Amino acid sequence: MAVLDESTLADPVALTRALVDIASVSEDEAEITDAIVAALSGRPHLTVQRDGNVVFARTDLGRERRVMLAGHTDTVPHHANFPSRTEGDVMWGCGTSDMKSGTAIALHLAATLTNPRHDLSFAFYDCEEIEAEKNGLNRVAATHPEWLEADFAFLLEPTYAAVEAGCQGTMRVDVRTTGVRAHAARSWLGRNAIHDAAEVLNRLARYEARRVTIDGCEYREGLNAMFISGGVAGNVVPDECVVQINFRFAPDRDIAGAEAHLREVFGGLDVTVVDAAPGALPGLDAPAAKDFLAAVGRPAAAKLGWTDVARFAALGVPAVNYGPGDPNLAHKQDERVEIPKIIECAAVLRDYLSLEA
Amino acid sequence: MAVLDESTLADPVALTRALVDIASVSEDEAEITDAIVAALSGRPHLTVQRDGNVVFARTDLGRERRVMLAGHTDTVPHHANFPSRTEGDVMWGCGTSDMKSGTAIALHLAATLTNPRHDLSFAFYDCEEIEAEKNGLNRVAATHPEWLEADFAFLLEPTYAAVEAGCQGTMRVDVRTTGVRAHAARSWLGRNAIHDAAEVLNRLARYEARRVTIDGCEYREGLNAMFISGGVAGNVVPDECVVQINFRFAPDRDIAGAEAHLREVFGGLDVTVVDAAPGALPGLDAPAAKDFLAAVGRPAAAKLGWTDVARFAALGVPAVNYGPGDPNLAHKQDERVEIPKIIECAAVLRDYLSLEA
Repeated sequence: MAVLDESTLADPVALTRALVDIASVSEDEAEITDAIVAALSGRPHLTVQRDGNVVFARTDLGRERRVMLAGHTDTVPHHANFPSRTEGDVMWGCGTSDMKSGTAIALHLAATLTNPRHDLSFAFYDCEEIEAEKNGLNRVAATHPEWLEADFAFLLEPTYAAVEAGCQGTMRVDVRTTGVRAHAARSWLGRNAIHDAAEVLNRLARYEARRVTIDGCEYREGLNAMFISGGVAGNVVPDECVVQINFRFAPDRDIAGAEAHLREVFGGLDVTVVDAAPGALPGLDAPAAKDFLAAVGRPAAAKLGWTDVARFAALGVPAVNYGPGDPNLAHKQDERVEIPKIIECAAVLRDYLSLEA
Repeated sequence: MAVLDESTLADPVALTRALVDIASVSEDEAEITDAIVAALSGRPHLTVQRDGNVVFARTDLGRERRVMLAGHTDTVPHHANFPSRTEGDVMWGCGTSDMKSGTAIALHLAATLTNPRHDLSFAFYDCEEIEAEKNGLNRVAATHPEWLEADFAFLLEPTYAAVEAGCQGTMRVDVRTTGVRAHAARSWLGRNAIHDAAEVLNRLARYEARRVTIDGCEYREGLNAMFISGGVAGNVVPDECVVQINFRFAPDRDIAGAEAHLREVFGGLDVTVVDAAPGALPGLDAPAAKDFLAAVGRPAAAKLGWTDVARFAALGVPAVNYGPGDPNLAHKQDERVEIPKIIECAAVLRDYLSLEA
């Protein structure tokens, strides 16, 4: 079994390298989970629990506020980018950006921050890169909701050391046109459902997406066809065409509001909601959030994308993304992390979470 | 081996039943071809040749004109509609309409019309119901073009005893829009190719198809999307959308003219021709055609669809479709033919091809 020794746990860069070098493609996370449990067990300031491949650790020091730090342990499949390789200030390898550098910072703080300013909770969870039903944080939010209770949460997903607050919601709808089949040689006997889809595409093409500013963060919405399909055979006027549409919406709309908006945009057309996930308000007016932003010294930006911060938001916990990786490098063959960003994020969080000198 | 005896050959209804009862799904046509060769061989008025499962027979009586009669021997796969079943005036079964009733009339005339008014050629060919490359008439048009030489040709495809002249041409084109991929959460960084396809569909929706009258036959054109497809993944702004379009055109356009027209309709868009087949002019001003229409006593109508008459047209032979089956019943489980239509078509052709009394 991989062992994370004290000198590695004390150094977030060495710990990032050690975690990257434990292969942990989604659903193959027993080894990395064992290593995390071993690294945190037996420390007087922590209580450690495990559920499957989710590790939960907490302090109970009677502080006024509780802050959560969370990171997933899985990566997408390797692509000739395992194990890690370091050149100068850059560490290359699968998971360096998304998100073992962030997870390493959380694990480093869990092991070493024995007398923090706030009570701390830590969650290390599995299967973030695959279907939502398998997501470890999703699972424990249902089975152990008390694990996620906090006044403020950090998800150490890659943000390149920026504070990204809240997240967009997302909704998929199918807009379907229905016609009448006919032989292509006698097409006037039918009604072409693909031609009728012109109306759907025209409304998409002329849609003007909102920009909404909440707590100083600008959320930009988007309404896009992701797929279109229609057709029966090479000589048949098609009687169905389906446009699958994705709506990314600012967190001032809830799911019902997003659906009502789409039903207005596509009024008179056949609209079916396929699925949806709510957004998360930035929640930057929470006292712990204000303190952190002051510590970072830069304003927060809106998270454009859906992340697990929405799971905290659903439980009423304001949460931000804050991590050293570059989000544009996630899932790429040349995934890498800049070592100074690891040091910077670890130092900012350590300062923020430490008792003032 | 199935044997077609003289009394069967003398009766187009009995002969239809006998041919329907020889299973001959496309590419499984050796038995029916053997039976046709045996039925025609040894007759002093005919020369018989065979190439694979194509049978060619001809008279050489020194007549001024030559008339061709052609029919395919294959059927689509059976669908609980084999063998034939007769109830009153209706014969049910696979191939009754498309086109063993027509093929039976041609075979009946070949065997029994020993002293015709015009020299006659007969072609019985395989694999009409499957890919064009396997079509027996297509094959011998290339390998034995002299077999198809005639002043006028009948294809005994189902027309419900109407004369259907010429046929539409057909062309498939792909119209493609190209965009720029982006993450759906940051869609403004990309360009959605599906949204851009609105322009393609708008032009299709507002296209006004021509109606063209040639030799008294009205050809109605049609321009239709057969398929549309686009999409990369559920969270990616798609960078390609392809609309596959079918153009059915009147035979006053050739393939080059059809392509030029589509390039005008879709001007400014990315158009690729996938394939095309020329139409066939009705050719009803040919003397043999005029005589036949006079014998039938009804005007011809345009054939809406592509048929093998275009293969004759490509060789300069005017050709019509004329057969007893109902084209709307072709390929259906409840395929059937009305026996009086078999008798009517056989009598009209027999009278037209016989020396006047």
